[in-house]
Amino acid sequence: MKKYVFGVDIGGTKTDVGLITLNGSVVEKIRWNTFKVGGWKANITNIIDVINNLHKKHIKKKDRIMGIGIGAPGPMDFEKGMILSPPNMFGWDYVPFVDCLKKKIKLPTIMDNDANAAGLGENIFGAGIGANSLFYFTVSTGIGGGLIIDKKIHHGFTFDAAEIGHMTVNLEGPVCNCGKVGCLEMYSSGTSIARFARQMVRPTFRRRLDSKILKIAGIRENISTKVVAEAAMLGDKTARYVIEQAAYYLGFATSAVIQIVNPEVVVFGGSVMKMGALFLKPLKDSVKKFTWKRPFESCKILRAKLGDDTGVLGAASLVISKTPR
Amino acid sequence: MKKYVFGVDIGGTKTDVGLITLNGSVVEKIRWNTFKVGGWKANITNIIDVINNLHKKHIKKKDRIMGIGIGAPGPMDFEKGMILSPPNMFGWDYVPFVDCLKKKIKLPTIMDNDANAAGLGENIFGAGIGANSLFYFTVSTGIGGGLIIDKKIHHGFTFDAAEIGHMTVNLEGPVCNCGKVGCLEMYSSGTSIARFARQMVRPTFRRRLDSKILKIAGIRENISTKVVAEAAMLGDKTARYVIEQAAYYLGFATSAVIQIVNPEVVVFGGSVMKMGALFLKPLKDSVKKFTWKRPFESCKILRAKLGDDTGVLGAASLVISKTPR
Repeated sequence: MKKYVFGVDIGGTKTDVGLITLNGSVVEKIRWNTFKVGGWKANITNIIDVINNLHKKHIKKKDRIMGIGIGAPGPMDFEKGMILSPPNMFGWDYVPFVDCLKKKIKLPTIMDNDANAAGLGENIFGAGIGANSLFYFTVSTGIGGGLIIDKKIHHGFTFDAAEIGHMTVNLEGPVCNCGKVGCLEMYSSGTSIARFARQMVRPTFRRRLDSKILKIAGIRENISTKVVAEAAMLGDKTARYVIEQAAYYLGFATSAVIQIVNPEVVVFGGSVMKMGALFLKPLKDSVKKFTWKRPFESCKILRAKLGDDTGVLGAASLVISKTPR
Repeated sequence: MKKYVFGVDIGGTKTDVGLITLNGSVVEKIRWNTFKVGGWKANITNIIDVINNLHKKHIKKKDRIMGIGIGAPGPMDFEKGMILSPPNMFGWDYVPFVDCLKKKIKLPTIMDNDANAAGLGENIFGAGIGANSLFYFTVSTGIGGGLIIDKKIHHGFTFDAAEIGHMTVNLEGPVCNCGKVGCLEMYSSGTSIARFARQMVRPTFRRRLDSKILKIAGIRENISTKVVAEAAMLGDKTARYVIEQAAYYLGFATSAVIQIVNPEVVVFGGSVMKMGALFLKPLKDSVKKFTWKRPFESCKILRAKLGDDTGVLGAASLVISKTPR
């Protein structure tokens, strides 16, 4: 008898459903574009269809499905299994996701914040394997976090723990989308890196027009994190400056995490981390600057390992962590 | 049969030994000036004598002592029961405190960082009674912290969790005693409040010489936190400015704690908090400014309740938390 878990990862852009073994192998993964605007019902229907199809295709009579794990964007009511109203997903307001799914598929179902799930996944299968305490950063369009203490997700009193993207990193900074000032996301997210790069090469003020950023992108509107990374790889100073600034503020937030929680491991995932050492080197320098020697030197600062499967493996690990293996 | 615990609080200035009942009543407390310079052996001898005397005086044949709890300044090796080398306690280097005590008194003995112990005490007997997660700030000469998760002290990987006094709150701030830059302690401790006040009334530059701070203190050297508080109570603008600046940075650090840990309660103790609303009001305003609405509004921000008994009750609670009641 083999045991499996379904991992469901609902993102602002894509939804993934994967059939996962208890040791973290992805048997098959199906991906589609999330039905966004008001489309949560269509998205659930598709999730149910895909789960049923994967079930028919791969599961033999004696095999057992241990449950369904779901990672979705916050804010959510973790206990009620309800998605509240994530930014960028218009119309997904107070969605009773877990209840809807349970009506159609009779399996234990656990939903959590996607960054929490990814952190748990990295703790069970990835870079922070076996660590007792771990903080996970996802640095992508936005910035999210997951805090693992005693190998369990620490949710906090209102399930808002590890909302690191909206920790203030500049006390005098500009107002953020969230209403506070100087949030980390405004400095170190992929969106912000691209925005800073576009600002640096504004033709109006003839600033940094020699930058390779502009040469690679063609027009300013095409400047993306990827373009900035490419230019930096070619030694472009403007690109490096932009990346170092983002890494500096992320390093400061990381230092706060280490001073407060003193975790064994900090793992960085998300698309921005694809830059590798270009970003990780100044990031570590910044963490070092703002953190005590002992907790800094004892803390492993690592890139995430699960890559493209983070979503489904993280979601699956919500169930796997509660399953005796 | 009654059950008791000894609580020992070793401070840079005073040492307290208290005989405590399991429900947190202080039967008797003995206090003396800590034998500081190289005097750890003399201090242990005195602790042992006081414990033996309290035992003889109060404990009847059928009564039971559950153990000794010790709160002491960090850094320490919590597992080995060893005080490493606290600043301001010259010669207290690598002191095997628990072993020394156990040789003379055969009782279960637990030592922890004094701020961790105080946090646990507030969680069991004080302002944060019964809370599942709690962060404790002690704002005094310096600033310390204790993090309680699932009603237990969270020590962190190298026992450095909750070292909030040395969280950077100003990325471009001056160098701190600890070697990092812009630490909280440089802005919000009692020492810093007095220092800022002295700077504000420098006669050389004829600044703020009309301040009541100077009138109350007489000479600049006499300016203390207490003097600043008195002047502020009389409506002195300079004093209020100094207090508000300290509260502002402490509020920022608190907001980082809330965004990262999302605790049920944050408790503020220490001598600076004796100012009451004068300090607490701008502190809460600052926390509000830098924290998300939901985790802020759900978080009880309270003054510590244990007052002068914080040390012995916190230390005792290290044992009491492990004793079935």
